[in-house]
Amino acid sequence: MSRIGEFELIARLVEMVAEARLDRTSEWGARIVVASGDDAAVTVPKGATATSVDSLVEGIHFRRQTAPLGSVGRKALASALSDLAAMGAAPGEAYVQLGVPDDLGEADCLELGRGLAQEAAEHDVAVLGGDVTRAPTLWIAITVVGHADSAGELVRRAGAGPGDDLAVTGELGGAAAGLLLLDRPELATVVEAEVADALRRRQLEPQPRLAAGRALAAAGASAMIDLSDGLGGDAAHIATASGVRLVIELERLPIQAGVGEVAAAAGVDAFDLAAGRGEDYELLVALPPDRAEDARAEVTATGLTLTSIGVAEEGAGAALRASDGSERPLAGFDQLRR
Amino acid sequence: MSRIGEFELIARLVEMVAEARLDRTSEWGARIVVASGDDAAVTVPKGATATSVDSLVEGIHFRRQTAPLGSVGRKALASALSDLAAMGAAPGEAYVQLGVPDDLGEADCLELGRGLAQEAAEHDVAVLGGDVTRAPTLWIAITVVGHADSAGELVRRAGAGPGDDLAVTGELGGAAAGLLLLDRPELATVVEAEVADALRRRQLEPQPRLAAGRALAAAGASAMIDLSDGLGGDAAHIATASGVRLVIELERLPIQAGVGEVAAAAGVDAFDLAAGRGEDYELLVALPPDRAEDARAEVTATGLTLTSIGVAEEGAGAALRASDGSERPLAGFDQLRR
Repeated sequence: MSRIGEFELIARLVEMVAEARLDRTSEWGARIVVASGDDAAVTVPKGATATSVDSLVEGIHFRRQTAPLGSVGRKALASALSDLAAMGAAPGEAYVQLGVPDDLGEADCLELGRGLAQEAAEHDVAVLGGDVTRAPTLWIAITVVGHADSAGELVRRAGAGPGDDLAVTGELGGAAAGLLLLDRPELATVVEAEVADALRRRQLEPQPRLAAGRALAAAGASAMIDLSDGLGGDAAHIATASGVRLVIELERLPIQAGVGEVAAAAGVDAFDLAAGRGEDYELLVALPPDRAEDARAEVTATGLTLTSIGVAEEGAGAALRASDGSERPLAGFDQLRR
Repeated sequence: MSRIGEFELIARLVEMVAEARLDRTSEWGARIVVASGDDAAVTVPKGATATSVDSLVEGIHFRRQTAPLGSVGRKALASALSDLAAMGAAPGEAYVQLGVPDDLGEADCLELGRGLAQEAAEHDVAVLGGDVTRAPTLWIAITVVGHADSAGELVRRAGAGPGDDLAVTGELGGAAAGLLLLDRPELATVVEAEVADALRRRQLEPQPRLAAGRALAAAGASAMIDLSDGLGGDAAHIATASGVRLVIELERLPIQAGVGEVAAAAGVDAFDLAAGRGEDYELLVALPPDRAEDARAEVTATGLTLTSIGVAEEGAGAALRASDGSERPLAGFDQLRR
């Protein structure tokens, strides 16, 4: 905060995110009574709210050398919104806390703010409050609030039953392969430039699956979680919360184009990138068998695929089953790589 | 996070703050549908919500050498709750994000969590969510949600009118004098040990004036703010938001016992500690003249004093008037000492 005062920076960031703010005459916008600039933001929510927090820390979750600050701003909000997607909530408001080191200039701060504002605008999120403070290293802490007409419409981790179909939105492994490409640019020669770009974007600017999450909730999902820690850890969370055993078929995982080539070039297992690492921010969902077909149609209508990858059974834990019938426990995956 | 995994630490912190959680059969507790452990917390708020965020950063807002970690946990939540007090909101839920450096051991983390849980319990706050991440330096980012039956019951910064009485809860200058004592322990000899203790506590464990804030809102306050940046900057915020000029009488400031002695020993102006520094977390309130007497009685009933320190006039800005009639602009005070 060497070149710009806290109050001035807040004012500029507020101005920037104000553009991303909702039309007050819309359903969600009408809920907002006081936006930023007072001691607290005031809203009048209807029905139920889902609230989640998430943070990005320099040196832990990103490095300024490889992650443009606009992407950092986008990803900070996107990863928080992904939790709302996993509840099937409609995104509403966000609150942003920013720790700014002295070596981060005004232009850098505004680039970060711009990325955040763009992400907010794309998902109709109103940024209602914030706090900017000096800090030894850069960090961004986000709080997001989503909405539903009633608490019963929101999908929890508990609720999967034996016989439920397990499915995943989109494709897996891209974020982990993208991170390999950012850390080791020389690996990129093994795939087409466009494929490498797509992998890096999965890492730098993940997409919260908000529309798919709402579609899955409406279609009758029994349990849902977003893949932030990796399929292994996240499947284990559903298994524990629901009191079931999840069996996932290795060959059915929808692996993103280029992940296999990058994994081979890096000397790692493509299935490890797809199931053992996190940050794809796809949704893992359990669906009662009679809901699976509808759910697939609804998700497809949002422009994403929905792939059946396994089933829930009586029992406990989560396992990955290979084509030879051998099982590999998923819970053993390292859930804290960083 | 060298000795304890993220998930295990979260589990222990959750267990700790669960004790601070509300009875679900109470009015506020019944609002909570899903507490921590899912992708998001779910609540069903009635009426209006007030949401505010605040953070503490090691090396900027506190030093581990002088601030016990239990106090850091308490202060992080207290300073966020103070914003709810300034709205006249009833405290409801809190969400905690924690950046933990490698040199912070498990016992340290739990001491911090214990302080936070104690503060939450004292104010009937349910800690519903959290995120723990590794970080190069310790930081705590808090989100608090308060409630009111309707948005109109909450008191904003805008609303003060010419002729309104300006009043402040409790006593001023204690937090700044306490910080001097923590940084320069040799100064403590100029006051009684109990007085020095009280000053240090004002700095380490400020009290959010939640009951007084609600009493002032009910008594008809026209504008309110908490004194986090200091009377100077905070009065200027009310003046700007309300479109009035605030004139504060220097001699009427209720200065805490010992502040004068510590200021003299440190070679600084006691009025500067009381009006130019922040962190007292008292409330500055504007009251229509016919509400002032009721308001004083209501605040007194919560165990705090309410002192009339000036008036709102036509005009702009905020000024401190000395007994000789000279005026000192308040807005010129440095609002970012740290």
